[in-house]
Amino acid sequence: MRNIVLTGFMGTGKSAVGRRLARALGWRFVDTDEMIERKTGRTIPRIFADSGEGYFRKIERKMIQSAARQKNTVIATGGGAVLDPRNVRALKKNGLLVGLKASPRAILSRVSGSDRPLLKGGDPRRRVERLLAERRERYEMADLVVDTSGRDADRVSRGILAFVKSGESDRIRVELGSRGYDVQIGSGILPRLGPRLAKLGCAGRVGLVSNPRIHKLYGAAVSRSLRRAGFQTHTMIVPEGERYKSLAWAGRLYDAMIEKRFERGSTLVALGGGVIGDLAGFAAGTFLRGIDVVQVPTTLAAQVDASIGGKTAVNHVSGKNLIGVFHQPRLVWIDTRVLRTLSEREYRSGIAEVIKYGIIADAGFFRFLEDNMSGLLRREEGIVRMAVRRSCEIKGRVVREDEQESGLRRILNYGHTLGHALETGTAYRRYLHGEAVAIGMAFSARLGRHLGICGEDSVRRQLDLIQRAGLPVSLPRIRLADILKNMKSDKKVAGGTVHFVLSDRIGHVVVRPVSSHEILGALRIKQKEDQGG
Amino acid sequence: MRNIVLTGFMGTGKSAVGRRLARALGWRFVDTDEMIERKTGRTIPRIFADSGEGYFRKIERKMIQSAARQKNTVIATGGGAVLDPRNVRALKKNGLLVGLKASPRAILSRVSGSDRPLLKGGDPRRRVERLLAERRERYEMADLVVDTSGRDADRVSRGILAFVKSGESDRIRVELGSRGYDVQIGSGILPRLGPRLAKLGCAGRVGLVSNPRIHKLYGAAVSRSLRRAGFQTHTMIVPEGERYKSLAWAGRLYDAMIEKRFERGSTLVALGGGVIGDLAGFAAGTFLRGIDVVQVPTTLAAQVDASIGGKTAVNHVSGKNLIGVFHQPRLVWIDTRVLRTLSEREYRSGIAEVIKYGIIADAGFFRFLEDNMSGLLRREEGIVRMAVRRSCEIKGRVVREDEQESGLRRILNYGHTLGHALETGTAYRRYLHGEAVAIGMAFSARLGRHLGICGEDSVRRQLDLIQRAGLPVSLPRIRLADILKNMKSDKKVAGGTVHFVLSDRIGHVVVRPVSSHEILGALRIKQKEDQGG
Repeated sequence: MRNIVLTGFMGTGKSAVGRRLARALGWRFVDTDEMIERKTGRTIPRIFADSGEGYFRKIERKMIQSAARQKNTVIATGGGAVLDPRNVRALKKNGLLVGLKASPRAILSRVSGSDRPLLKGGDPRRRVERLLAERRERYEMADLVVDTSGRDADRVSRGILAFVKSGESDRIRVELGSRGYDVQIGSGILPRLGPRLAKLGCAGRVGLVSNPRIHKLYGAAVSRSLRRAGFQTHTMIVPEGERYKSLAWAGRLYDAMIEKRFERGSTLVALGGGVIGDLAGFAAGTFLRGIDVVQVPTTLAAQVDASIGGKTAVNHVSGKNLIGVFHQPRLVWIDTRVLRTLSEREYRSGIAEVIKYGIIADAGFFRFLEDNMSGLLRREEGIVRMAVRRSCEIKGRVVREDEQESGLRRILNYGHTLGHALETGTAYRRYLHGEAVAIGMAFSARLGRHLGICGEDSVRRQLDLIQRAGLPVSLPRIRLADILKNMKSDKKVAGGTVHFVLSDRIGHVVVRPVSSHEILGALRIKQKEDQGG
Repeated sequence: MRNIVLTGFMGTGKSAVGRRLARALGWRFVDTDEMIERKTGRTIPRIFADSGEGYFRKIERKMIQSAARQKNTVIATGGGAVLDPRNVRALKKNGLLVGLKASPRAILSRVSGSDRPLLKGGDPRRRVERLLAERRERYEMADLVVDTSGRDADRVSRGILAFVKSGESDRIRVELGSRGYDVQIGSGILPRLGPRLAKLGCAGRVGLVSNPRIHKLYGAAVSRSLRRAGFQTHTMIVPEGERYKSLAWAGRLYDAMIEKRFERGSTLVALGGGVIGDLAGFAAGTFLRGIDVVQVPTTLAAQVDASIGGKTAVNHVSGKNLIGVFHQPRLVWIDTRVLRTLSEREYRSGIAEVIKYGIIADAGFFRFLEDNMSGLLRREEGIVRMAVRRSCEIKGRVVREDEQESGLRRILNYGHTLGHALETGTAYRRYLHGEAVAIGMAFSARLGRHLGICGEDSVRRQLDLIQRAGLPVSLPRIRLADILKNMKSDKKVAGGTVHFVLSDRIGHVVVRPVSSHEILGALRIKQKEDQGG
């Protein structure tokens, strides 16, 4: 395991948290400021006063290089250490860089009475705020950011440990009795798919369904792994694009499977995003009344959502996903490394679903996302793994309790009622799914406030996070009556009434029927706000 | 409840069984022979000797007319009573006519030492055999025939009571947890479908899927019943014939459902035979990831087989039922009265599946079919109900224990491995499904003997019963290698080996892999036998 390096502004709790982490792991704890004081025999304020900041930073760099070479060590660095990219490089090489942050108020209350050189000269609060603003970008370069305001050192330390451990064992079990399966998450695990499938008892023919682009990038690695594990692989390429998720293309997959003499024990491997997963899943679910499908999702949206839960479908000219079956996969194989080749827009679109899980089921996860949105956008491995893992856990739990969407599973549709209506209303051309969901979530937050279900703070936090992910929150200029009509033709409509998933507080949702009148009221307010602001 | 009338040759146990039935039901027991002796003050041999058979029959007719007017009575009649059609009419009017039969040997051992006028003159055994042959047709006019050879009166009486009770409560539950459902069997129950569906909590839109012929016969009754129960019904007509069980026609049903704004809570009612049931079931199973389907089978084959168990499918140009899903119905509604309009060939074809249940799971039921094949072919209400009910019970039990055909359910494929191959090999033109299955069962019986799994007697009984149902047992002139090839492309093939369901004794089967060599061997023997004989 790599070292853990704590960084962050003064008063964010680096020493207190660091000591607890070291104790929990049975590791050494070193504080580079203390190392400097021991080495020089002077206090830090003394060094600053006598020799200036430049001198201090030089010694600090040496100490950091030395500490970074240790093993099984929790390292706390001074608040300014990460300003030097050389320090960051050295620390990240063998360590997980955890940035602690806190509000100016929390910082001031923690450091009051101490003798901190950087706070000298002028109003301390102003000075803290200025320094935090200057350094924000640097602090967010960490592998993990944790806000310590209002949390004691024990709790922060437990959170960091959970994050570290999540990177070790990334296997989630979706418990569905005889239809249960594993979701395996890892970086660079594509070449290990073959042996795992063989271990599951699969044998014989495997159809690798993919689109040309993804197949070019990852097809060879997957095929090779399957062949080496003894499978006869047949590649089935489907052109890229939603319109190929059709009954006609399912028919082509049937033809290919029949030609290759697929049997009940044969398997389809869906290597791609939602289109490939849905189409291959549907073909597998309907061929010979169901053969195995393994989902190998290559987009963030598919990794955290579509690949888990067994929903498969093809589109009908009248609407998306109108034809489909529930067909649970045999295995979900998530290689987060493939996200590196995902376009920025696709990646951000997937983040919408990640944010959704925080809102509907886990306030702590939502806060993790607030703290680590920069790292997530930078696709920091640890943050991505944590985000994917927690999303899959929540999705798996909901699916377990409601396999066929008769109740609880509806909560996964947070933001989707309006989202789908927007996608339909713009002929699926203007928005990626996650973008439409982002607008839908922003609307649901405001609708909740409009109906008196949730408070202003919760709405603001949702909107902020969605926007920080670079996702839209504003309604397009489109006739409100059309949106409403599209909502009503959604396949989840029961008895003509639109049921909305609404968040009453971050981490929790309720489902309730909402009248057309109420929807239109909230839509009008939202459109006015969006277009005024 | 109607009276129970026992008839049959002397020595078949009418009095002994009748007394037990009366006791069990708390009814009166009358024996028309005793009534005659009391009335005339003479024994029956005396009447025959003094006044002749004509005189006896006249008094007998009077006694029967009188007995038939009673209620809650078990009536035993003399062995010759049913020779007069007037007696049969009178007895059937208010009673269930049960014909007891027995082997000549059993009869002789029971009547030896008694003073029976009809046995006088010549060799008693010859005389019994001749009389039985003369009267066979008359005895088989009964509503139920029971062979009493080797069974004591208690057992025979219990069997009759079970038959009588089965006519009262014809609801079978297929236990599948949240996917469980009722199979309701009755005569003339089509007009009661609407209220029952409403009671199940169905509401809103119902699509009635049928073919033109069946819809003309029964569509109005079903639609009316549904509308009266508050449903909005939409009729969807599919042309008659296997080739309309296609993905393209499933597409037309999707179009119709979308046009009529079907929702997740909407229902399809499949009114027809296997084609309609499979197609509507597949469309329901794949529309919006599954809406309810109610099976209202109108052929015997669909009533006893296809409507229960959730197997749905459409055909692919390369083979039947290659595309499909498991989708359990919400309800199966079997009106045996509709069988009256079924063609003789279709009806007999359905009997093949009925016989299959006896062979694979219930020796008693097989014997019931041996005793009552004439009544079944005449479509006697009670016999048909009993045959349908017992078949549905067996099918439901097998489905419950193996919903998705991973093990036990395979036993339902008795006779189907060769049957399917024959259907494919003759392009589905030559045989109805049941006819091909009949040949397949005959072959399986012989294959079992060839492999030393079962004895000659079991094979003979199977072949006899299949032939008595007017079904074929001989292989057509077709290349054996082609048959074998078609068997291997069956979708139940695992790892290239053909698994056969074989009966080791009537009422029990085993599944075992059979080599091509063994199959060809048995096929050659069979072809030779068939073409030689």
